[in-house]
Amino acid sequence: MTSSAPLLHTSCPLCGPAPAGLIWEDAQLRVILVDDSPFPGYIRVIWRDHATEMTDLSPEERDHLMRAVYRVEALQRRMLQPDKINLASLGNQVPHLHWHLIPRWRSDPCFPDAIWAPARHDPALQAAWQRRAQELRSHTPALCDAITAALGDT
Amino acid sequence: MTSSAPLLHTSCPLCGPAPAGLIWEDAQLRVILVDDSPFPGYIRVIWRDHATEMTDLSPEERDHLMRAVYRVEALQRRMLQPDKINLASLGNQVPHLHWHLIPRWRSDPCFPDAIWAPARHDPALQAAWQRRAQELRSHTPALCDAITAALGDT
Repeated sequence: MTSSAPLLHTSCPLCGPAPAGLIWEDAQLRVILVDDSPFPGYIRVIWRDHATEMTDLSPEERDHLMRAVYRVEALQRRMLQPDKINLASLGNQVPHLHWHLIPRWRSDPCFPDAIWAPARHDPALQAAWQRRAQELRSHTPALCDAITAALGDT
Repeated sequence: MTSSAPLLHTSCPLCGPAPAGLIWEDAQLRVILVDDSPFPGYIRVIWRDHATEMTDLSPEERDHLMRAVYRVEALQRRMLQPDKINLASLGNQVPHLHWHLIPRWRSDPCFPDAIWAPARHDPALQAAWQRRAQELRSHTPALCDAITAALGDT
């Protein structure tokens, strides 16, 4: 779909008005900062139409979506210097196509597990991570500005 | 890298000889059936060079990798009819670029959470899922054959 009027489902929380944390959007996708996450710099790239799977999109749409994912990943790496990037399109709870782009650090609560696994931290490590996360969060405004500049204006 | 001699790290479990479950390979990637998983039809697509992130690849390499991912996803959907597909490139434990392609069912042990979350099943549901999973696994040889045919010979 290249129309500027996305296909929406009224009961879907990812359809409709832009959610909090919007960094950038075009007619096909939105880029969101997940600001309430314990993982600084966590971004979601959300397809605007109510598609469910990558293979519901045309090849051109897939490429457009993934080019945005790669640009954001490159900026997360450059500006936050994480130990790893995690990419995931799950959608079991909200089956509206969206990508999770999660910078990971060896000292974060779940590393080396996925962020959906139980946290491993003991209280001492948790306190150290909170200080580190606060410092990392001070860079997220610059990350958002860089994403806006890299993806350009619609 | 388009060379037929992949860049390998001797200490990496995803470098070197093909792991168990190999379905298909070319000079750049391998497609593996994760046969010991509780999730029938779970496939990994593994980049052969020891790259870590998608943005370590050239745009052409990313497209080659993702085209294989989409072809496998399409076949998982057609042949297993899951309720959802989960795609993830994590690599926190083995930082060698690989994609998890996981068919999901509403009756599977972790749904609607990620497979890395704790299972939710009580024993009665677990027994029903085991029967369903056994039936689904009977389709994985045909899925593997379809993947081989779709990806073609190198």
